Amino acid sequence: MSQENWNRWGAGDERGALNHIGADEIKHAAGLVRDGIVVSLAQPLSPRTPVPAHRAGVQHFMGRDGGDYAAGGRRPGGFQFAEDTMVLPLHIGTHIDALCHAWYDDQLYNGFPGTGTRSTTGAARCGIGTMGPIAGRGVLLDVAALKPVPDGGSITRADLEAAARAAGTVPGKGDIVLIRTGWFERQSGTVSFDAEPGLDVEAGLWLAGRGVAAVGADNFAIEAIPFPAGTVFPVHQRLIRDFGIPLIEGLVLKPLAETGRSSFLFTAAPLPVTGGTGSPITPMAIL
Amino acid sequence: MSQENWNRWGAGDERGALNHIGADEIKHAAGLVRDGIVVSLAQPLSPRTPVPAHRAGVQHFMGRDGGDYAAGGRRPGGFQFAEDTMVLPLHIGTHIDALCHAWYDDQLYNGFPGTGTRSTTGAARCGIGTMGPIAGRGVLLDVAALKPVPDGGSITRADLEAAARAAGTVPGKGDIVLIRTGWFERQSGTVSFDAEPGLDVEAGLWLAGRGVAAVGADNFAIEAIPFPAGTVFPVHQRLIRDFGIPLIEGLVLKPLAETGRSSFLFTAAPLPVTGGTGSPITPMAIL
Amino acid sequence: MSQENWNRWGAGDERGALNHIGADEIKHAAGLVRDGIVVSLAQPLSPRTPVPAHRAGVQHFMGRDGGDYAAGGRRPGGFQFAEDTMVLPLHIGTHIDALCHAWYDDQLYNGFPGTGTRSTTGAARCGIGTMGPIAGRGVLLDVAALKPVPDGGSITRADLEAAARAAGTVPGKGDIVLIRTGWFERQSGTVSFDAEPGLDVEAGLWLAGRGVAAVGADNFAIEAIPFPAGTVFPVHQRLIRDFGIPLIEGLVLKPLAETGRSSFLFTAAPLPVTGGTGSPITPMAIL
Amino acid sequence: MSQENWNRWGAGDERGALNHIGADEIKHAAGLVRDGIVVSLAQPLSPRTPVPAHRAGVQHFMGRDGGDYAAGGRRPGGFQFAEDTMVLPLHIGTHIDALCHAWYDDQLYNGFPGTGTRSTTGAARCGIGTMGPIAGRGVLLDVAALKPVPDGGSITRADLEAAARAAGTVPGKGDIVLIRTGWFERQSGTVSFDAEPGLDVEAGLWLAGRGVAAVGADNFAIEAIPFPAGTVFPVHQRLIRDFGIPLIEGLVLKPLAETGRSSFLFTAAPLPVTGGTGSPITPMAIL
Repeated sequence: MSQENWNRWGAGDERGALNHIGADEIKHAAGLVRDGIVVSLAQPLSPRTPVPAHRAGVQHFMGRDGGDYAAGGRRPGGFQFAEDTMVLPLHIGTHIDALCHAWYDDQLYNGFPGTGTRSTTGAARCGIGTMGPIAGRGVLLDVAALKPVPDGGSITRADLEAAARAAGTVPGKGDIVLIRTGWFERQSGTVSFDAEPGLDVEAGLWLAGRGVAAVGADNFAIEAIPFPAGTVFPVHQRLIRDFGIPLIEGLVLKPLAETGRSSFLFTAAPLPVTGGTGSPITPMAIL
Repeated sequence: MSQENWNRWGAGDERGALNHIGADEIKHAAGLVRDGIVVSLAQPLSPRTPVPAHRAGVQHFMGRDGGDYAAGGRRPGGFQFAEDTMVLPLHIGTHIDALCHAWYDDQLYNGFPGTGTRSTTGAARCGIGTMGPIAGRGVLLDVAALKPVPDGGSITRADLEAAARAAGTVPGKGDIVLIRTGWFERQSGTVSFDAEPGLDVEAGLWLAGRGVAAVGADNFAIEAIPFPAGTVFPVHQRLIRDFGIPLIEGLVLKPLAETGRSSFLFTAAPLPVTGGTGSPITPMAIL
Repeated sequence: MSQENWNRWGAGDERGALNHIGADEIKHAAGLVRDGIVVSLAQPLSPRTPVPAHRAGVQHFMGRDGGDYAAGGRRPGGFQFAEDTMVLPLHIGTHIDALCHAWYDDQLYNGFPGTGTRSTTGAARCGIGTMGPIAGRGVLLDVAALKPVPDGGSITRADLEAAARAAGTVPGKGDIVLIRTGWFERQSGTVSFDAEPGLDVEAGLWLAGRGVAAVGADNFAIEAIPFPAGTVFPVHQRLIRDFGIPLIEGLVLKPLAETGRSSFLFTAAPLPVTGGTGSPITPMAIL
Repeated sequence: MSQENWNRWGAGDERGALNHIGADEIKHAAGLVRDGIVVSLAQPLSPRTPVPAHRAGVQHFMGRDGGDYAAGGRRPGGFQFAEDTMVLPLHIGTHIDALCHAWYDDQLYNGFPGTGTRSTTGAARCGIGTMGPIAGRGVLLDVAALKPVPDGGSITRADLEAAARAAGTVPGKGDIVLIRTGWFERQSGTVSFDAEPGLDVEAGLWLAGRGVAAVGADNFAIEAIPFPAGTVFPVHQRLIRDFGIPLIEGLVLKPLAETGRSSFLFTAAPLPVTGGTGSPITPMAIL
């Protein structure tokens, strides 16, 4: 059992590695805005958003719409409106994992008990509602530009270091590191979630050791699938639970890569769902 | 029928006044980051998030949680996780209205037909999925600090001008204007949605005329409730439909007001729900 | 445009052919109970209940369960309980179509306007909430026992007549006719909804003309899929809209067939969803 | 700890007191059909169906409706249809409790462990999917006709015996006993769930001892609310967990009482939700 970052920011801390982002990091990141361009890093969210076969996807229901007026609906004071409701799995499309999302040995990040997450209340600790909005330096490590990584292939520490050299910057304290594996871009039609390229544990630990605040990728799991024999989500176990590093999954990184910018102001703002285990988000790179 | 901003950004435009935010505005806004502090402007999102009595609120369901492991659930490879699903009305808590949310005379912003919004497809035009993330200069107009506005009371152009003087800045092209009415802060227990202070039409038009990109407030409707006799959501009708100005409702503005900062980098990133009429958001002020 | 049964039971009638079931029919049906055996005709209802690929299935969420107590949940007065919520499409598994479910030429059964069914209100007329519980004589026409019907194959009037002869009874006034096509029984693994055996229009009209109260089958659509060229759900159009005959889909008929009983007391009780277009049901045969 | 009916029908039994209904009971019940009349005992099911203040109610969403066609929706082959989805708590309106719904000392009816009911799977044992449809003799005990029972008041064994005398029949083996308290009928506007008349424990035990198959009432909890000091749902604990008796709540009994019939063929058919803890139902009395 490892727990590298436990108690690092106090026994009651629920934000983990996001604490690496201080005022200096935010000011530095804001200084990276030179072009005045915003790039969205999010997939569209709809019933067509891909999900693994055994999971339910989004449902989207209109409670009132233009058809109701066409059918004779009243419009008091001339006012017409439309509204809607979603059935929304919180880990779908482009989303962030709360620190309560993954654990082992019955303990969450910082030693909070896994039994604090219940049907009746959601997560008592490390829920997405305690994460707060994120702003800091984003660093794009464009692994796919350097070497094609096949489905199931591992992205190693050496791969990340090579990508960092190509980016001209090294991920460090408080950075939000975005890893382009190329996986999402090559999906079409029915998406298979059975095999994807992603980090191996050593690569994840290298990022963690450098003090990054969060790790994102353009795949579904950050880490390689299938897992190494005998392990299940080993990168999740280490990064989320031991280091308190939130993972950002399902990113759309090609448009960002095409700008040629490797570091930028990055923001992501999870919905503050009390006791939630994650949130769909629309991260943005401000160039 | 008015349609001040129709065709201003092209016949196919679906982003409306957000087009006022160009590269210069974004760069200027990033330059306002001096303290390196992030302030969330969002309410917690849970089954307790207040909604009007006739509406359904949030539901939050755990699909897997710590209780399952306590009850004997298997943990292959040691891995434990929790996940969840929400039933989420898109206009709840702190949220933004898409330009398809409100209209009159059967035409949305830019002349798109209201009948394009249907149960089967959501909004064909001006859905929240076309809005994209927002970054620009936020301006806090702290009306509540100048004068208490009672429930049902109007906030006038003069009130906004006075607040702008106090803020030391005038809302202009591409600004996201946040109006603190004080309403949200004085709620406790059961929230009444029957009466709230808010903008009158003239105040809304003054902001629209100055080229602001979006208007937000710490109330439920931006505008005063009850409405003036014979009207229903008149500010919605004019700002959203005629000017293409998205409204941001349910903001939490007291913590921001307490910083003393009146202008700042503001970001808000709606979930890109295809055909959706709005989105809960977690806006942030980066100071 | 045909409308055989419109106005037959009054201009305001919303129950259609169910009106064929009078006191005599019910008493006669009760008299068929000779063995004191109840046979359920319903599929299990769960996230695994088959649905066509483009549709969402059932979701089932626990709001409180045994895991919560294992995790330390309080049990005031010793009391422990579990509760749950479903996201439930109303046309799934074994279900009945309300008379508002299908129509053409903008008019429902009995001439009610199709525009009375809206997002805001559901169906103003012929909703499942107006149907009421059903009890009457059930007649099993075991077509599959006489002749294998391939996927996509039509079941004709002659097939029904042959099955009736084999059953030793002729469907008549007020009967609920259950047609075993054999389709459901031969499904395994992923169910294809692209091809199934079912009634042709003439067979449907023969039943309608004999005054049956409802028609059910062990397939998804009652009628054959694919449809005859140039038509879409022609049996639905005629039976539901012109004759006011509710259709019962997704029945499990093999256990009933194995009893050897062809007529019996049949009951089915839709959930009285105000304005709903159908309901999952658990029909039973009481032998 | 009591467990009167455990192992009575085998160690693996999940149907409890419903086993009291045998072929003779069903045949006898069918013989009670004399008038050929069906009376529904169910409340309408809609967003207006009353629920306690802390619970979410029904949501009903149209996925396609007449408004879509009015707005220009295509109708291939002339076919028009409407469909819908509910968010449906399983204990709402008129519903039946599965035997997994309530327990104490970590054991369900027949000794099954409470930990078998989990977020991931629902109830492994005694779920509503194992109950099957119910048909048998219904007996109406019209307590309200004999004596007004105030909210919070107890209905005692003596009350039940008096009502049985008035009914001219004594509840016995396999009967489904329906108790009219008068509570539901006197509700109007906002329903308070804080106080209602209902059975005390002794009355419940009297019914259980007589071998009834199920107990229903026109209130929310069968038993009196508030509970006797120091207890929480004591009748639920004893009847469901120790005797395996399903409870049917939220019945509409006035129309049945007005028929003057005290015994009749009763049917109720829960949706066979795999692992569900209950089901809305539309019970019927066939007279």
